Amino acid sequence: MIEFLKKIDLFSHLDNNELENFTKKGQILPVSFKKGQYLIQEGAKYNSLHISIKGICMAEMGDITGKTIKIDEFKPPHIIGIGFFFSDKNILPVSIKAKTNLQIIKISRQAIFNLCKSDEIFLNKFLLTLSSRIEFLTQRIRFLNFNTIRQKLANYLLILAGGKENSLTLPLKMHELADYFGVARPSLSQVFIDFINEGILSRNKKKIIINRREKLLAVCNN
Amino acid sequence: MIEFLKKIDLFSHLDNNELENFTKKGQILPVSFKKGQYLIQEGAKYNSLHISIKGICMAEMGDITGKTIKIDEFKPPHIIGIGFFFSDKNILPVSIKAKTNLQIIKISRQAIFNLCKSDEIFLNKFLLTLSSRIEFLTQRIRFLNFNTIRQKLANYLLILAGGKENSLTLPLKMHELADYFGVARPSLSQVFIDFINEGILSRNKKKIIINRREKLLAVCNN
Repeated sequence: MIEFLKKIDLFSHLDNNELENFTKKGQILPVSFKKGQYLIQEGAKYNSLHISIKGICMAEMGDITGKTIKIDEFKPPHIIGIGFFFSDKNILPVSIKAKTNLQIIKISRQAIFNLCKSDEIFLNKFLLTLSSRIEFLTQRIRFLNFNTIRQKLANYLLILAGGKENSLTLPLKMHELADYFGVARPSLSQVFIDFINEGILSRNKKKIIINRREKLLAVCNN
Repeated sequence: MIEFLKKIDLFSHLDNNELENFTKKGQILPVSFKKGQYLIQEGAKYNSLHISIKGICMAEMGDITGKTIKIDEFKPPHIIGIGFFFSDKNILPVSIKAKTNLQIIKISRQAIFNLCKSDEIFLNKFLLTLSSRIEFLTQRIRFLNFNTIRQKLANYLLILAGGKENSLTLPLKMHELADYFGVARPSLSQVFIDFINEGILSRNKKKIIINRREKLLAVCNN
């Protein structure tokens, strides 16, 4: 278990003795979940940080009508809900479910808090993790705020290409990009086709060439 | 200056001696800005936490076309960009500009880090602040992800009303709500008018009565 923890950046610098100490006090515990079991139910208190070390888990959210929507899927190792762990309400906004049989390490709130207090490197990494999450979410809101899919995609491609380059490689698959924008995949694919038909882009799988940058800028500006 | 800091929740429990110590070391500094001056330029390193104690500052963002968009406006006391302060890139995604003459307290990264290490209450408050920011942004993304303004508004009203209540008071002004959804204000007002004409809502300024909850649920579900 300790070997697994040390593969995770947040814990990689800690020595075995320190981690074994937490284990002896019961502040770090291994737990297993069977496929289909819920690790945490949406709205429950989230008092131990769960880290998946084997198997796939997924986040689900009940919408207001009671329908369950799959939000995300996490491969190991994954630290679950680190951003909500110290929040005011201390409640996860999603349910976490085992998609396959799952091995988890649970770390108590006290252990995480003690590490923050006593270990400067850990504190730095922990603050960095939270801040980077805020950075990611803010960037995501920036994209979502663009009203049309044409605007979202034009803005995204221009940022990826940077100031001068006109070729780029998409870092996400089409369905991931659609999720990132919060739009349906067919609609996004249609905008790609439109851009290509309008002579704005050429595309070869993940390779994109911007042929008419001024047109993309105009889309953002509309 | 120390009195001002103590009015801010994050620092309210600290004793004067401790804060004066930081002041003597130059880790807490007062700074003034004239109306129109930039405190921080978008993309610059953000190495001292800025807290406004007098005057109004605003966040601006240059979009990809070079146009400047006003993002937000902050009344004192306001802690600027706390979520980005410890991030990987350590860069603010917005420019901060003085809308009026401005008095600011700058606190060095080292001072904040030392407070996190040495003061358990501060650490707790600081982690809570970051986590609450993540909670807020996640909730906002949840709204932005609803595709139509009708869906955004229906979902928002149902959450505000809670499980059973059918009356509620809007906590935001119409233009604030439009900003929150990332939509234009006239479009949002039109959806309110539509909902009222369809018999779904009644409205008296900020007071809203949900007359046909099942219709709102159907809007979310579409």
